[in-house]
Amino acid sequence: MAVGLSDQLPPIHPVADCWLGSTAAGIKKNGNPDLVIMQLGENARTAAVFTRNAFCAAPVTVAKAHLAVTQPRALVINSGNANAGTGEQGLADARTTCRWVAEELGLEPEQVLPFSTGVIGENLPMGRLQQGIPAACAALNIEGWQQACRGIMTTDTVPKVVSERIILPSGAEIVITGMTKGSGMIHPNMATMLAYVATDARVSQPVLQQVLQQTTERSFNRITVDGDTSTNDACTLSATGVADMAEIDALDSADGEVFLRAMDDVMRRLAQMIVRDGEGATKFVTVQVDEGATADDSLKVAFTIAHSPLVKTALFASDPNWGRILAAVGRAGVENLNIDAVRIWLDDVCIVRDGGRAPDYTEEAGQRVMNQDEITIRVALGMGSAQETVWTTDLSYDYVKINAEYRT
Amino acid sequence: MAVGLSDQLPPIHPVADCWLGSTAAGIKKNGNPDLVIMQLGENARTAAVFTRNAFCAAPVTVAKAHLAVTQPRALVINSGNANAGTGEQGLADARTTCRWVAEELGLEPEQVLPFSTGVIGENLPMGRLQQGIPAACAALNIEGWQQACRGIMTTDTVPKVVSERIILPSGAEIVITGMTKGSGMIHPNMATMLAYVATDARVSQPVLQQVLQQTTERSFNRITVDGDTSTNDACTLSATGVADMAEIDALDSADGEVFLRAMDDVMRRLAQMIVRDGEGATKFVTVQVDEGATADDSLKVAFTIAHSPLVKTALFASDPNWGRILAAVGRAGVENLNIDAVRIWLDDVCIVRDGGRAPDYTEEAGQRVMNQDEITIRVALGMGSAQETVWTTDLSYDYVKINAEYRT
Repeated sequence: MAVGLSDQLPPIHPVADCWLGSTAAGIKKNGNPDLVIMQLGENARTAAVFTRNAFCAAPVTVAKAHLAVTQPRALVINSGNANAGTGEQGLADARTTCRWVAEELGLEPEQVLPFSTGVIGENLPMGRLQQGIPAACAALNIEGWQQACRGIMTTDTVPKVVSERIILPSGAEIVITGMTKGSGMIHPNMATMLAYVATDARVSQPVLQQVLQQTTERSFNRITVDGDTSTNDACTLSATGVADMAEIDALDSADGEVFLRAMDDVMRRLAQMIVRDGEGATKFVTVQVDEGATADDSLKVAFTIAHSPLVKTALFASDPNWGRILAAVGRAGVENLNIDAVRIWLDDVCIVRDGGRAPDYTEEAGQRVMNQDEITIRVALGMGSAQETVWTTDLSYDYVKINAEYRT
Repeated sequence: MAVGLSDQLPPIHPVADCWLGSTAAGIKKNGNPDLVIMQLGENARTAAVFTRNAFCAAPVTVAKAHLAVTQPRALVINSGNANAGTGEQGLADARTTCRWVAEELGLEPEQVLPFSTGVIGENLPMGRLQQGIPAACAALNIEGWQQACRGIMTTDTVPKVVSERIILPSGAEIVITGMTKGSGMIHPNMATMLAYVATDARVSQPVLQQVLQQTTERSFNRITVDGDTSTNDACTLSATGVADMAEIDALDSADGEVFLRAMDDVMRRLAQMIVRDGEGATKFVTVQVDEGATADDSLKVAFTIAHSPLVKTALFASDPNWGRILAAVGRAGVENLNIDAVRIWLDDVCIVRDGGRAPDYTEEAGQRVMNQDEITIRVALGMGSAQETVWTTDLSYDYVKINAEYRT
């Protein structure tokens, strides 16, 4: 059960010059949509970030190579099969997929970026892709987000879309619409996570890449479900440039600042949706670490807490077992940690102070917070002013069930 | 269900000048033995290693301080309460416990080392300890290992003892007997892990400490259940020195080499018992990484695999989901990893070669290995000659159940 999410999609603002088409090509065994194509207008610019896993999947390798030579005009995304760990055959299959899409849309193969998500290590069912691609292309439509966000799902229980219409300081009105998928193997440096964001804003390529990298760092690289990172993660940001406005060519311009803030908001909400739909999640947990000597220290502590199976099972049990949080802080590897200066709160309830349980802490107060669906664990290290926040879930029976049965 | 372990204890060789006494002091709610005292003869020497968690528990702080001033003559161990996160009160309680034992045995308080394991963050029930200590002392006996190994258990399902009698090159016959506890919060740099090993060998203090550190590094620091490290871990090695032999005062002496090998064997078997009894474990998994450029690289890969919730749930499901192993290798952070050079085996079945699934791999062959209770995952990095091995378990429903319900 996703925490605080609904199966109802929000109102989605289409993005001019960005068309989406979906079909059920038969890659997923359950007959759900599994092939999505996004076509972009000829002035579109696209920025992208990818997994840092050394075993990156074939489509990631091909997408990077294509991005290096030209601006993309189409993305092709399949779910149900990751085309990862598939060696030379996988690379050939990814290139063939691009060629088929290019032929259908009158493009060069290098203008198409391939993406895959699903089971690792099986070859793409190329016959089904060949049949599906014309069907997906025939469905291309600027209203296509509704189907597309379902077509990229794997173990996700709900589709994930964020859509905003904003007015820039220059007076131009722009749209930002994004969709994402992912619910397990979620960790910084991307996860089995795909996200596609489009805007009609006019943005220079360097600024677009900067915006994507900065906002990814503060969103998708701050979430974790199980600490695993995937071979296939990718996030793209496409700006079709058809809005009536001057190009944003610097981040510190008035329009640039507002665009960056809006993108921060969209990306953070998309990333949090993945955590809220985390495999087996029953809690949405914010881990905020204040007063670090360095950002790195604060981040280490936040992720050590967020990854601890003992903290996560206690969260699942709604057990205010603050000792497990304290133990996680202690083993995070912060140098010169003064344990007497560390304080820990569950929401507004102080649970640790002066090297031990806070004198005024009561189990009832801790239990009250733990019973909630959404909980903030806040740690103050007493060493400096660096703050970092990550988002995570609990570890439930269903996490084990989903991952033990995924292939069967 | 512990993997490959039985509730039957092996034959235990008592260690001369090492007496153990146990009692049920009422610290555990279930009425099982929970207080153990080990008394050592006046010529005994003791080496110790402790948790590296910055939040070390009160008894760890006190034990370190006592070790700094004199040789221990007694250890006092309680289960059911960790006396961790208890601030000044916890330190005072640990010191008081030592004083009570010292009074009972005619020792100085500094000659007593305290150890605690159990729930974090609650004060020790001092009334129960005060009543229990005379009872435990009254039970002191060189045959006391049988009860003691049960008295230190928490979530363990079976007691854990290894006992060996060996003949040194000099002709002396010595005994090494050890007991350990721990089944969750298990990770290198110690875990919620206590281990007490005694021998009647005559060993100099520096050699004793060297032997303990080297053998701990190759045993307890190579096991992991859930990646959490505890505030209370400790391992002691006491040599009573009553065997008829010349003192071992160098590791490279003939007796020293044999003693070190015997200790390696005892420590590795004790450590593996903890993994075999890992919380909810249904598999005993050896992760061996060969051909690393450095030992650090090999160890990073081994622990990344051993900690991956996705690998661990696949093991629980007996699912040869080799893609998850490959993904873990890829994200371990090895620099300059050439993915085409990496090979991965499940026991003798090669699953990954040339950057993808081995051409001759079949699901049937993978499934055959996965159905076993004991599995070796072997990775060859193709970069050098450094080899490291760690031992771990799968991640099962019962792991979640045990840790979600531990305090309730």
